[in-house]
Amino acid sequence: MPEKRPADSYTMMTEIVLPNDTNVFGNLMGGRLMYWMDIAAAISSQKHCNSAVVTASVDNISFENPIKLGNTVHIEAKVTRAFTTSMEVHLKVWGEDLTQQFKYKSNEAYYTFVALDPNSKPKTVPTLIPESEEEKLLYEGALRRRQVRLILGGKMDPKDAQELRALFIKDKL
Amino acid sequence: MPEKRPADSYTMMTEIVLPNDTNVFGNLMGGRLMYWMDIAAAISSQKHCNSAVVTASVDNISFENPIKLGNTVHIEAKVTRAFTTSMEVHLKVWGEDLTQQFKYKSNEAYYTFVALDPNSKPKTVPTLIPESEEEKLLYEGALRRRQVRLILGGKMDPKDAQELRALFIKDKL
Amino acid sequence: MPEKRPADSYTMMTEIVLPNDTNVFGNLMGGRLMYWMDIAAAISSQKHCNSAVVTASVDNISFENPIKLGNTVHIEAKVTRAFTTSMEVHLKVWGEDLTQQFKYKSNEAYYTFVALDPNSKPKTVPTLIPESEEEKLLYEGALRRRQVRLILGGKMDPKDAQELRALFIKDKL
Amino acid sequence: MPEKRPADSYTMMTEIVLPNDTNVFGNLMGGRLMYWMDIAAAISSQKHCNSAVVTASVDNISFENPIKLGNTVHIEAKVTRAFTTSMEVHLKVWGEDLTQQFKYKSNEAYYTFVALDPNSKPKTVPTLIPESEEEKLLYEGALRRRQVRLILGGKMDPKDAQELRALFIKDKL
Amino acid sequence: MPEKRPADSYTMMTEIVLPNDTNVFGNLMGGRLMYWMDIAAAISSQKHCNSAVVTASVDNISFENPIKLGNTVHIEAKVTRAFTTSMEVHLKVWGEDLTQQFKYKSNEAYYTFVALDPNSKPKTVPTLIPESEEEKLLYEGALRRRQVRLILGGKMDPKDAQELRALFIKDKL
Amino acid sequence: MPEKRPADSYTMMTEIVLPNDTNVFGNLMGGRLMYWMDIAAAISSQKHCNSAVVTASVDNISFENPIKLGNTVHIEAKVTRAFTTSMEVHLKVWGEDLTQQFKYKSNEAYYTFVALDPNSKPKTVPTLIPESEEEKLLYEGALRRRQVRLILGGKMDPKDAQELRALFIKDKL
Repeated sequence: MPEKRPADSYTMMTEIVLPNDTNVFGNLMGGRLMYWMDIAAAISSQKHCNSAVVTASVDNISFENPIKLGNTVHIEAKVTRAFTTSMEVHLKVWGEDLTQQFKYKSNEAYYTFVALDPNSKPKTVPTLIPESEEEKLLYEGALRRRQVRLILGGKMDPKDAQELRALFIKDKL
Repeated sequence: MPEKRPADSYTMMTEIVLPNDTNVFGNLMGGRLMYWMDIAAAISSQKHCNSAVVTASVDNISFENPIKLGNTVHIEAKVTRAFTTSMEVHLKVWGEDLTQQFKYKSNEAYYTFVALDPNSKPKTVPTLIPESEEEKLLYEGALRRRQVRLILGGKMDPKDAQELRALFIKDKL
Repeated sequence: MPEKRPADSYTMMTEIVLPNDTNVFGNLMGGRLMYWMDIAAAISSQKHCNSAVVTASVDNISFENPIKLGNTVHIEAKVTRAFTTSMEVHLKVWGEDLTQQFKYKSNEAYYTFVALDPNSKPKTVPTLIPESEEEKLLYEGALRRRQVRLILGGKMDPKDAQELRALFIKDKL
Repeated sequence: MPEKRPADSYTMMTEIVLPNDTNVFGNLMGGRLMYWMDIAAAISSQKHCNSAVVTASVDNISFENPIKLGNTVHIEAKVTRAFTTSMEVHLKVWGEDLTQQFKYKSNEAYYTFVALDPNSKPKTVPTLIPESEEEKLLYEGALRRRQVRLILGGKMDPKDAQELRALFIKDKL
Repeated sequence: MPEKRPADSYTMMTEIVLPNDTNVFGNLMGGRLMYWMDIAAAISSQKHCNSAVVTASVDNISFENPIKLGNTVHIEAKVTRAFTTSMEVHLKVWGEDLTQQFKYKSNEAYYTFVALDPNSKPKTVPTLIPESEEEKLLYEGALRRRQVRLILGGKMDPKDAQELRALFIKDKL
Repeated sequence: MPEKRPADSYTMMTEIVLPNDTNVFGNLMGGRLMYWMDIAAAISSQKHCNSAVVTASVDNISFENPIKLGNTVHIEAKVTRAFTTSMEVHLKVWGEDLTQQFKYKSNEAYYTFVALDPNSKPKTVPTLIPESEEEKLLYEGALRRRQVRLILGGKMDPKDAQELRALFIKDKL
């Protein structure tokens, strides 16, 4: 199975905020944006593993700036790290007011997908080799974020999360 | 401003999985489910604060069992704790095959909403007083989850997160 | 085949009125509401019969108060009576302005569903045993409403509708 | 205010049943069809009154034959009678399998709309003058159906419904 | 295989412009209109050939007047000419403000569909016999438009397009 | 007003074909694709002119290969030439089966947009300076395509279309 680079899964999605995507303030609803992010991340992870995928989990998402009705939404997705049968996808989301020529960050997020074969069984995925500095940082952080997911999902004891513990006790050392 | 109980914000949403909600395996897509959860949580938090709200953040969501085409989706939402201008909403999601008479958990999640006045300025929300044992546990956990959010959002240093640190270093004590 | 109570089919659906659901006055369109009511009633009748169902008929619906854009829609559904292979579902619909803390009735309606087996053939459904006073009244009225449906569908001669005739000629007796 | 004929409000709507419009049997869902019928009837009543309208009520609808995925839906609408500020619209709905060259009736229905001025106040509508034999029958029946609506809506005592009573007691005379 | 007349494929579609169909000026978006036109034209061509069809091409469409939110959209479709396995459909689209009693042209267009058998293979379609003067003109123009399509699709050399060349060089003769 | 390069308006849109986007063969419907292309082209032209835009016309589109359910749709858009108040946008559309690792062309198209100021009046747009060889060819062809549009829209006499005539009569020279 060939290795893959983050660039292989690079995905760019662009949308316009239409009336039905908005709340009473005329801003894009969080749920609608997470829907689009899920589609973008699914495409990105399929580019990495070349098989069907399903959303396994979504990490904390913090919405920074509201995206206005009529503005453009940019969603950029790239696989940060592959585990045995799963892949973490990093998403950057920003809004753009093309008339005012103004761009603003909406959020950054991590979605995890599992590759499935045609019988819906998890399937091994190619290894990811990070290249740029940013990709290496994302690759390293992926292990720590995975521990957070496992702890929050009740599948790991916090005291076994070596990477995470270091963050909390380093001032002790 | 009157105090509120979790029961005041209890919200029940029920949906059927239609063809366009599904992926190639005929299962509900994660993004579509997060969209419905956002609507349910928005209604729940509005019941607590009686003002307009916007999604501020979404915590880790782990999708356990896929919900099948034609099955029923149940989403139950309740506010767990109120902070100055924000509220954490706990969601329980399960699928149900009414023909096979089989219920299965999909996920549990926490969405955070901010109350806004008509000028889009954050607005103080009523205090929440938990009642049942489960509500008290959710209320206590809310502080710890808030620290995770602040750390992950880069707004708190892990070593200042007293509640969280305890989880990681208690084996030291 | 076990008997069922109305509580077994109790279904609660909650929605927010979004821009595309509204007419030029910014109020929920009747057709969109009937679509949601159909989904809620289908779930309710499936809870009663534990098989697939199809909408057989819808009784007179009278829309009392318009539900505003951004307001919450509550739809409550419960089976009132089971006939051989069909079930009558009672729906109560009300709107709620959570900011103004104001609830208002939209309508009450009766949908009838037929249970189908996997070959699309009508299938016998469990008997319904009403419990509360309100459930007993709904159960009794179901027979009269069924006669109206049969007469309006050209399947019964008005003079054979004993229950209904009584309403019109009682002043004669 | 000029009089109008039924032909003035004649409206023809044509749709294809798409995947998301169907239930688990691959047939058009009743709720989706009622949504389309509401749009067609709204257009028809606007043609009659030349002002904005809102759905006031929907009479009994009985779904006769399911309309299949991919088949064509035909909805024909025409105003049958105008009351002071409201109009009754008659709808005929049939499905068509253009490959098999087979047409089948789905249902017939009556929707009632109220004309509103820009301040959302009910507004007088033109009188309707029926022309053909079928239009005259529909015009006459409209009064009887209106009595059913008023009785079912609790706004008329059955014994004051002269037109309706005649149906039930004529065998007595 | 029987011949068909244009009237056999006559199709009338009527819609209301809803909020989500509009751009920031509150006018129907071109893309949404082309979606509806595609459905109307698909139905029209299916009426002609009585088999499944797929969109093969769309000719130049020029949008003349914007259709406003809440206005009615009328789409009229009719087959103009049948080639071996394809059919050209002519569409007339106009908007109508029923309150102002004002109709305005949006556009005229030509869509081409190919008839397919159940194995997705192109299938011979009935010949079309134009009747009215307008139908005869559309029938003749169809050949010229087909040459434009073939040239623009790189499947015909402009100098072999006899019908078209005549338009450009007739002043030479 | 600054000049712009084609790269300034480069837009990449990525979508997955969902069930409701497909016809009876499980392929993306032409109308749905034209809807997405309209959004992508609108964003691209807004990047060029930094004002609101409306679709003025769409050139011939020929659909070459059907895009399958579950496959990925790639839409690439770039402005080819600016006229006084309008811009021609070139779109390339291809499908991708990420599991089979197979890409296939769907179509190429030209959409024309007009820039509007806040009062809906046409507004002057920046000049476009092509850079690459392909961009120069697209720029030159834009004039010819504009003549086709004007002729087909009845706004130019074919014999005044110098650029186009050359194509038809060059074999004469």
